[in-house]
Amino acid sequence: MKNMKLSNLGEKKIIKKLMNSLDIGDDAAYIPFDDKFLVASTDMMYRKTHILKEMSYRQIGKKIVAINFSDIASMGAEPFGFLLSYGSPDIEFENFNEIISGVSDQCKKYNTTFLGGDTNETDELTLAGTALGLTEKPVLRSGAKVGDIVAVTGFLGTSALGVEILLKKLINFNEIDGEILKETLEPEPRVPDGKFLKNYANSMTDVSDSLAVSLYDIANMSNAGIELNLNKIPISNNVIKTSGKLNLNPINYALYGGGDYELLFTVSKENWGKIKNKNSGSGFKYKFTRLGEVVKGRGVFAGGKKIRNSGYEHFRVL
Amino acid sequence: MKNMKLSNLGEKKIIKKLMNSLDIGDDAAYIPFDDKFLVASTDMMYRKTHILKEMSYRQIGKKIVAINFSDIASMGAEPFGFLLSYGSPDIEFENFNEIISGVSDQCKKYNTTFLGGDTNETDELTLAGTALGLTEKPVLRSGAKVGDIVAVTGFLGTSALGVEILLKKLINFNEIDGEILKETLEPEPRVPDGKFLKNYANSMTDVSDSLAVSLYDIANMSNAGIELNLNKIPISNNVIKTSGKLNLNPINYALYGGGDYELLFTVSKENWGKIKNKNSGSGFKYKFTRLGEVVKGRGVFAGGKKIRNSGYEHFRVL
Repeated sequence: MKNMKLSNLGEKKIIKKLMNSLDIGDDAAYIPFDDKFLVASTDMMYRKTHILKEMSYRQIGKKIVAINFSDIASMGAEPFGFLLSYGSPDIEFENFNEIISGVSDQCKKYNTTFLGGDTNETDELTLAGTALGLTEKPVLRSGAKVGDIVAVTGFLGTSALGVEILLKKLINFNEIDGEILKETLEPEPRVPDGKFLKNYANSMTDVSDSLAVSLYDIANMSNAGIELNLNKIPISNNVIKTSGKLNLNPINYALYGGGDYELLFTVSKENWGKIKNKNSGSGFKYKFTRLGEVVKGRGVFAGGKKIRNSGYEHFRVL
Repeated sequence: MKNMKLSNLGEKKIIKKLMNSLDIGDDAAYIPFDDKFLVASTDMMYRKTHILKEMSYRQIGKKIVAINFSDIASMGAEPFGFLLSYGSPDIEFENFNEIISGVSDQCKKYNTTFLGGDTNETDELTLAGTALGLTEKPVLRSGAKVGDIVAVTGFLGTSALGVEILLKKLINFNEIDGEILKETLEPEPRVPDGKFLKNYANSMTDVSDSLAVSLYDIANMSNAGIELNLNKIPISNNVIKTSGKLNLNPINYALYGGGDYELLFTVSKENWGKIKNKNSGSGFKYKFTRLGEVVKGRGVFAGGKKIRNSGYEHFRVL
């Protein structure tokens, strides 16, 4: 390993290395606590690699909370506390205040206490958040069983398409579809979905690095394979329309793009029946889409063709 | 507040502003948890402002844990978990591994689980740690009572003197006193002291920003004053010897210098008697020094002269 740079490893391997010093490897750590589990996760945002220049300071504050709550939600836990380590150069107080207000608003929205923070002087805006949550039953990546239905919340590819449009200036800012812009600049963690699903799902993770990466995470950690139906990947009408206009293939964004904070999960066929029934009931607020099945073997396939295990990773971008 | 830069405020005011969005303001947040309190704290280290170039990668890893555990200890809590958000440019894997090993070693030393982390690409080494702890009784800054004895663990000024020597190259690296070097590059959190003191202390904080700042924190948050005996500030023989050689006044470092992770606390005279007795017993492992008394009024004084409320703050250095 001498003289091996981090870029030769990629984040997955670094995390594995980190995990060697750890007890567990999942979206968040979980610790038995009386009759419940304390769930904890930390995630950093750095201006140059994580923050689009179109984001407002308030959106930046909201996002550092959202990405951390997403890790809590994907364990089937509910967040109750949030901590912020804040670093920036000497910025306007008003901008700082907007970030903190964004953090505070987002915490309130999910009935979570903003517990405190630490301020530092750094050359670039750097936010490190820590979310704390509780659950009676953590839902792990490793719990998928052969025969399980593979499903996902919401729509995929929205944020990755939005990032592409913004970075390459494919569409004038004011003419970008509002839903795509909102998902890209102000993603919401699926906290209610995670809470609901913990009673049904055998395994769960979020798709923040990409659907493909998350499918592999669940398959590999469960010692199983996944057969995916590409036609079933849920893509919103706005994404189909916009990508059509731009001559882009939305499946690429939905499968290999990061930045969506939907939950990928597997459930027994019996539980899928229960969810599906609820799904068709009136007033049911969740959108779940079946897009595959857990199978024997290893790897993720669609129609017999192996899916690439790729998505957004720091130190090595797809 | 328009167009007011963070540097016009100083960290204390920023924290106050942060606190407006919060429930509490102390070394760490505390949350009732069944019959105990969960205590949580986050602290960031940034290469340019927090990391001396003489520090080894392993020492950097140890320090990010130490500064976070110090906040837990100062609440009278014991740490049980640690999370790390890691950011760096593409460094050698071996150096990264040294940092993680330092984190892991330090966690083991204090019987704490290294729960996991997040890796990011940043231009400068940036570590954000979060420590989680438990206590039956959090010891706050605000609990000091008029008549309390003010005391401190260990020796003060060692790290601040060490930083001055290293930054100004006052002594060749190889000739710096070993104790001073160790305290400067590898400070230890006073976890056992904090655990012991929670049964006696009315108020407590660490002195990481400076003794003066911490005295003011306790006095102000307890709506009281403190009368300090400057002659009693504990300074090690090595610091006295080294500062003498350099014609420096060690009291300045002990009073206004940051970087020591000793605990400042107040106890009733009755409890001080109990601690003092234990203190003189054989095999007792703590060193506590009485250096003042909590008095009516406001402010921190020594012999009738007001002490400056200054120390190390980001955005505005003393």
